[in-house]
Amino acid sequence: MLPFTFYSPTYFAFGEDTENQAGALVRRFGGARVLLHYGKGSAVKSGLIDRVKRSLSEAGVTFVELGGVAPNPRSGLVYEGIELGRREKVDFLLAVGGGSVIDSAKAIAAGIPYDGDFWDFYKGKPVKEALPVGTVLTIPAAGSEGSPNTVITREETLEKRGMGSDLLRPAFSILNPALTQTLPAYQTACGAADIMTHVFERYFTNTEECEITDRMCEAVLSTIVYEMPRVMANPNHYEARANIMWAGMLAHNNLCGVGREQDWASHDIEHELSAQYDVAHGAGLAVIVPAWMKYVYRHDIARFAQLAVRVFGVNMDFQNQERTALEGVARLQGFWRSLGLPANLRELGARAEDIPMMARRVNFKGREKIGGFVPLAVEDIEKIYQLAW
Amino acid sequence: MLPFTFYSPTYFAFGEDTENQAGALVRRFGGARVLLHYGKGSAVKSGLIDRVKRSLSEAGVTFVELGGVAPNPRSGLVYEGIELGRREKVDFLLAVGGGSVIDSAKAIAAGIPYDGDFWDFYKGKPVKEALPVGTVLTIPAAGSEGSPNTVITREETLEKRGMGSDLLRPAFSILNPALTQTLPAYQTACGAADIMTHVFERYFTNTEECEITDRMCEAVLSTIVYEMPRVMANPNHYEARANIMWAGMLAHNNLCGVGREQDWASHDIEHELSAQYDVAHGAGLAVIVPAWMKYVYRHDIARFAQLAVRVFGVNMDFQNQERTALEGVARLQGFWRSLGLPANLRELGARAEDIPMMARRVNFKGREKIGGFVPLAVEDIEKIYQLAW
Repeated sequence: MLPFTFYSPTYFAFGEDTENQAGALVRRFGGARVLLHYGKGSAVKSGLIDRVKRSLSEAGVTFVELGGVAPNPRSGLVYEGIELGRREKVDFLLAVGGGSVIDSAKAIAAGIPYDGDFWDFYKGKPVKEALPVGTVLTIPAAGSEGSPNTVITREETLEKRGMGSDLLRPAFSILNPALTQTLPAYQTACGAADIMTHVFERYFTNTEECEITDRMCEAVLSTIVYEMPRVMANPNHYEARANIMWAGMLAHNNLCGVGREQDWASHDIEHELSAQYDVAHGAGLAVIVPAWMKYVYRHDIARFAQLAVRVFGVNMDFQNQERTALEGVARLQGFWRSLGLPANLRELGARAEDIPMMARRVNFKGREKIGGFVPLAVEDIEKIYQLAW
Repeated sequence: MLPFTFYSPTYFAFGEDTENQAGALVRRFGGARVLLHYGKGSAVKSGLIDRVKRSLSEAGVTFVELGGVAPNPRSGLVYEGIELGRREKVDFLLAVGGGSVIDSAKAIAAGIPYDGDFWDFYKGKPVKEALPVGTVLTIPAAGSEGSPNTVITREETLEKRGMGSDLLRPAFSILNPALTQTLPAYQTACGAADIMTHVFERYFTNTEECEITDRMCEAVLSTIVYEMPRVMANPNHYEARANIMWAGMLAHNNLCGVGREQDWASHDIEHELSAQYDVAHGAGLAVIVPAWMKYVYRHDIARFAQLAVRVFGVNMDFQNQERTALEGVARLQGFWRSLGLPANLRELGARAEDIPMMARRVNFKGREKIGGFVPLAVEDIEKIYQLAW
């Protein structure tokens, strides 16, 4: 186990009707004048935004609104939010929505007190100050409700970049599983792939002797494997939705990643798919992760066998561990397929001739290779795209 | 899953030599004048206190010292600490030691700004204000380094009472597994029993549909079952010590308990043993918990079978689930026995004639029964003591 720090100061309010605590929680965490940030419609149509506004008003919190956040949130709206927030002298960001809305709110929160272009933070400059952010989560997937991270796409260049700062850990996050009961099946499945991949990126490590974090990872994965079929059979299954929602937070607040090197190549490889074909992040991951696994599993067959046995209930083949390892990958593919997720690039509508170009466009962040588990160069990534074909 | 809130804002610094960050962390969390609180010798003898003092001085933090905390910390030293802290105008409590030292520091931290007897808080008055507390942990067991709880024994009456407040969650906790390498085998084993019981008290619940917290519980338990034999074989095993130390925190910051009713009868039943015979808390638990399990398992055989299969690797007997459930209890007993822990009241030096009196003395906190899983009256507790004989 490597030395680490762990800091997750977010206050979580979990359960039905918890959105009605939004006003009191803004107060508790020092807010009086809120920028209320949300997406393109469903939170408004469902009446959620109205309930949140009522809660704010009842707590004596004033607010201005900025809706319209799209999936893969853009810099344009962030600049707009920063300007609005400064003009209206807001002291708190409240995001109502999924990861895109929360990520956009984090960017605005860092940008308002900063005397410069907020994009500097996404180019690597550390955040020194930020307004507090609260969230009302509607989609379990990105984990932004408990993480220090935010990903924004720059409008002009379509560069998609992430950054993180402990100052951007939400002050509070409101998680009402009932709000997720209306999520369409496909979006729910994409969220599950995203949650599981947040764990895989941490699980596949070269750091030895991390039994406790291995077990935490397996706890989250096993929960998703158990609960997702129940949600697919009955979208209104509150209990299954609740377990998935909490697991989604645990998958990405780094509880599953402390004390170990992490990988994150699959995220980088998937990003190019999303950029090129505008596919949902989770759908892209469902295609890339199994291909990545098939390309790298020989690097640590025992670890892949452990996943197969502990999470997918594969019987250990003691004479042939490799068979066990590959059976685990096959079970994962079958599981994602059963959720209605795509299994290969063709199903995503990709073009074979784009593969070399996409491999070259992967963001290497100035390094020669990406990935902490098995470092991958451009030619490796090309082979992974081909395995995903 | 029940509605819940979860709030664990403690900053954890984990790894070798992290005690040298004590001064900087006190500064980061607003301290300038520290009351340095510790126990009866080993932290001094080992040179740890000197390293912490050096770190404080280097960070420009001044301090006054109060050593001498004993296991089952007493009110007398708390009063002394409150007086000293007020006189010296300290603004931060730094506890260096195990759960007893941390619990004593929490009591002092709540008592200094309070215009009244600190014992009021242990009688149920909510804490409204407290100085921040930091910890340098030396014993993985009580989980106080990440919990809001503190237990103090009142000197005059030998009443042992606990209380909790989010204001008493440590601001930071320093966890250096190397500091635990010198713990004697018996104390290490008692700590393991304490850690596992913190999980059992949450695992045995009547709340249905908590897959994610069940899995978290099983993650912590499985880790202890895996790591403890390695520590018993080699007390200097840093990696095993590290996994146990982090698991000990996770067992009790309530990550394993959110969204579910909890039990806590075994703790109440054990307290009388500690009070009567001055046995280590963990040793008492090793005797009480299996007896409690044998008394209550019929209430939910499937849950006990789940523990047996998932944590102790018992093969499920589908024709006879009860056999599986009981085999799990037997495995737990065998495991604790293998660590050198006592298996019954006789080994603890108890007297059979004390049993009725102890059962009557259990703290019912004004209720007729204790325990959230199976409520227990005095006569039930007497039977559990008899099963433990």
